[in-house]
Amino acid sequence: RAYELVEPLHPADIADLLELLEPGERRELASAITDLMTGDVIAELNDYVRESMVEALPASAVAEIAEQLDTDDAVQLIEDLDDEDQQAVLAEMDAEDRAAIESALAYPEESAGRLMQRELVAVPEHMTVGDLIDYLRDHDDLTTEFWEVFVVDHRHRPIGTCQLSWVMRTPRHIPLTDVMKRDQTLIPTDMDQEEVALRFQKYALISAAVVDESGRLVGQLTVDDIVHIIQEEAGEDALLMSGAGEGDINEPIRDAYFARVRWLIANLGTALVASLIIAAFGAAIEKLVALAILMPVVASIGGNAGTQTMAVTVRAIAMNQLTKSNTRRMLWREFRVALLNGVTVAALIGMATAVIFTPQLGAVITTAVVINIVTAGLAGVAVPVIFERLDQDPAVASSVFVTMITDSMGFFAFLGLAVAAGLAV
Amino acid sequence: RAYELVEPLHPADIADLLELLEPGERRELASAITDLMTGDVIAELNDYVRESMVEALPASAVAEIAEQLDTDDAVQLIEDLDDEDQQAVLAEMDAEDRAAIESALAYPEESAGRLMQRELVAVPEHMTVGDLIDYLRDHDDLTTEFWEVFVVDHRHRPIGTCQLSWVMRTPRHIPLTDVMKRDQTLIPTDMDQEEVALRFQKYALISAAVVDESGRLVGQLTVDDIVHIIQEEAGEDALLMSGAGEGDINEPIRDAYFARVRWLIANLGTALVASLIIAAFGAAIEKLVALAILMPVVASIGGNAGTQTMAVTVRAIAMNQLTKSNTRRMLWREFRVALLNGVTVAALIGMATAVIFTPQLGAVITTAVVINIVTAGLAGVAVPVIFERLDQDPAVASSVFVTMITDSMGFFAFLGLAVAAGLAV
Ligand SMILES: [Mg+2]
Ligand SMILES: [Mg+2]
Ligand SMILES: [Mg+2]
Ligand SMILES: [Mg+2]
Ligand SMILES: [Mg+2]
Ligand SMILES: [Mg+2]
Ligand SMILES: [Mg+2]
Ligand SMILES: [Mg+2]
Ligand SMILES: [Mg+2]
Ligand SMILES: [Mg+2]
Ligand SMILES: [Mg+2]
Ligand SMILES: [Mg+2]
Ligand SMILES: [Mg+2]
Repeated sequence: RAYELVEPLHPADIADLLELLEPGERRELASAITDLMTGDVIAELNDYVRESMVEALPASAVAEIAEQLDTDDAVQLIEDLDDEDQQAVLAEMDAEDRAAIESALAYPEESAGRLMQRELVAVPEHMTVGDLIDYLRDHDDLTTEFWEVFVVDHRHRPIGTCQLSWVMRTPRHIPLTDVMKRDQTLIPTDMDQEEVALRFQKYALISAAVVDESGRLVGQLTVDDIVHIIQEEAGEDALLMSGAGEGDINEPIRDAYFARVRWLIANLGTALVASLIIAAFGAAIEKLVALAILMPVVASIGGNAGTQTMAVTVRAIAMNQLTKSNTRRMLWREFRVALLNGVTVAALIGMATAVIFTPQLGAVITTAVVINIVTAGLAGVAVPVIFERLDQDPAVASSVFVTMITDSMGFFAFLGLAVAAGLAV
Repeated sequence: RAYELVEPLHPADIADLLELLEPGERRELASAITDLMTGDVIAELNDYVRESMVEALPASAVAEIAEQLDTDDAVQLIEDLDDEDQQAVLAEMDAEDRAAIESALAYPEESAGRLMQRELVAVPEHMTVGDLIDYLRDHDDLTTEFWEVFVVDHRHRPIGTCQLSWVMRTPRHIPLTDVMKRDQTLIPTDMDQEEVALRFQKYALISAAVVDESGRLVGQLTVDDIVHIIQEEAGEDALLMSGAGEGDINEPIRDAYFARVRWLIANLGTALVASLIIAAFGAAIEKLVALAILMPVVASIGGNAGTQTMAVTVRAIAMNQLTKSNTRRMLWREFRVALLNGVTVAALIGMATAVIFTPQLGAVITTAVVINIVTAGLAGVAVPVIFERLDQDPAVASSVFVTMITDSMGFFAFLGLAVAAGLAV
């Protein structure tokens, strides 16, 4: 019954269905539809779900699935297994597939060499359009789907790319070197996936040649895989900034706990800095309890303003829009936005405070809010930019520092100004 | 001199260069390289930069650029102009292009109908592979780049898609209906871009047919444009959650101010709720100033924990991973993670408080932190899910509510427990 319902579905939909189930139900369904559990379904599964399902299979079954897949998908299947399981699976594969996967695993995670597929169509430069069509018709053992044909020289270095639509519109006798695009985007094996994704996006690529150190064509990247990387890289910053780690809902609870508790503890540290500042003004608070009532407002508004600017900055850095040449302009821009925001919000809270408490306290909170929002604006740009220059991911570490700065400045400016104005004597 | 430096660059790189410059320099460079300022360069520009540059051009020049472009890019160029300028540009265009753009503008923003390009290759179902190749060779007025050929019936309804690589590998006499894929993903004109992007990603599409209400093929979407949408949709949630609006660094300061100040004022509202709670415990704080020193720690940790869970939930919703069927599982999962986090963090802050202040205060803060982190975990799931069910974007509004809940609960639990324990009498 389950089988009949699942049978007409696309592999990606079968994968989604499995993800929605609880682990127990998942195993049940998988064993009811074993012959629908193709490599394509496994390749579409979320990393964690795939890992837990693959671990339950014997090494020979995993090897069989891996051999059905393109190298890029086979590597994804095998890379997350522990060393021992990996070896067991590789031992069951035929020599050629094993060699391909082992060489992929030798490249660092998230590099082009790890992500590329080895299946591609490369032809020598002397071919004509007619030769290419005949070659393709004769070789039905080629990788099943491709969007471009790479033209290589005698050392297997790519010299141009033929888009199939151009080839099909060209008479048979024309040489490929006349239809190919010479101006290609070559991806070195060690390029990081984030950079690869930006290239695909910028140059509207469908596929791209991956080359080794000597410039030889060793694989290709295709846009259908890059789409997942863009989704992942663009989406992860929201999770990283919040301190939620990967934030995958299929992640085991233990991993989610460790990923998040680190940042909560770091936040505890920064909150203690704020507490020290408050403690220094303990006597003033005892004399004027209104200070205790209002101080979280100043800190909270600053924190919010800082997070806004930080999110904008982290995004601009991720998109390669913020470089040395325009950082100063960005700071100046954010300073002006912060000043406008600060004056607006400070006027509101200042008036309310003047009415409910005293005009003097209203003046103090107005000044403190302006100071804190402007500080927040500058910190929101400066902190991520500094992390970026130190080669740290600005999305990961900025939040804790920006919050520390805005909390501390919020309490210090408000309590300090109140004391300086003689409001708590 | 500038001309020679810019000339060898790809249009996307020229666009990036213009974006990096200040508005004054930008106009200077643009006028030094007028004949390099092709439609492709304009199409690659950031929305705001393009708008400011296009507004400076006469309507006839804009119309000329628009006519060079595919309809999707021409629409992007024209949609952001104000009504009057739009009419002026359309009046300068030839009737066919004008009609295409007007019909695109009739669809809502961010819908498939607005985003699609009308240029595509569609052929009748009786053709063979050879017929198709001859047809393509004879018609050099077709759109320049395409990845798939749509096969349509006599009413122009798509019945299948031919991937060019399959066509090229097939002998000339085979009918297209034997090589085409019948199982296509058809996109209705009113589908939102976010949903379109998820389809492309899920089914690894390169292009897809867009159909009107009667099922007729009216345009196509191609993955190179979808890549930008994925980047935008996945990246915007971090900006929306922080209350930074679009967060584009090219956005005019005025727009950035209005986008952000709304959320700062909303935050002010929620901070005042927290202040009211503190005010209710004013007498206790006067008696025990340690309460004022420690209360921001409880609120801040809860806020951080809530933001973590919220970011995970918003992401899961955006990826279609969180549905009615697994919301309860997600809540239970987050409850357990929150309990682990709460106990860990509470133990740390509790011990420190016990040593620095009193063991009783340590016990109070321990309990308050556990309560607040668990509340944060549940609110971090519940708030975005509720907004989603109310058809509101969970990324936009959740932050304010989650923060309000964790701040209020933080102050209330900590101060309330302290009073209940008789610590401030
Ligand atoms: Mg999926
Ligand atoms: Mg194989
Ligand atoms: Mg992986
Ligand atoms: Mg990376
Ligand atoms: Mg692939
Ligand atoms: Mg990354
Ligand atoms: Mg990143
Ligand atoms: Mg660009
Ligand atoms: Mg045209
Ligand atoms: Mg637009
Ligand atoms: Mg396009
Ligand atoms: Mg959107
Ligand atoms: Mg969204």
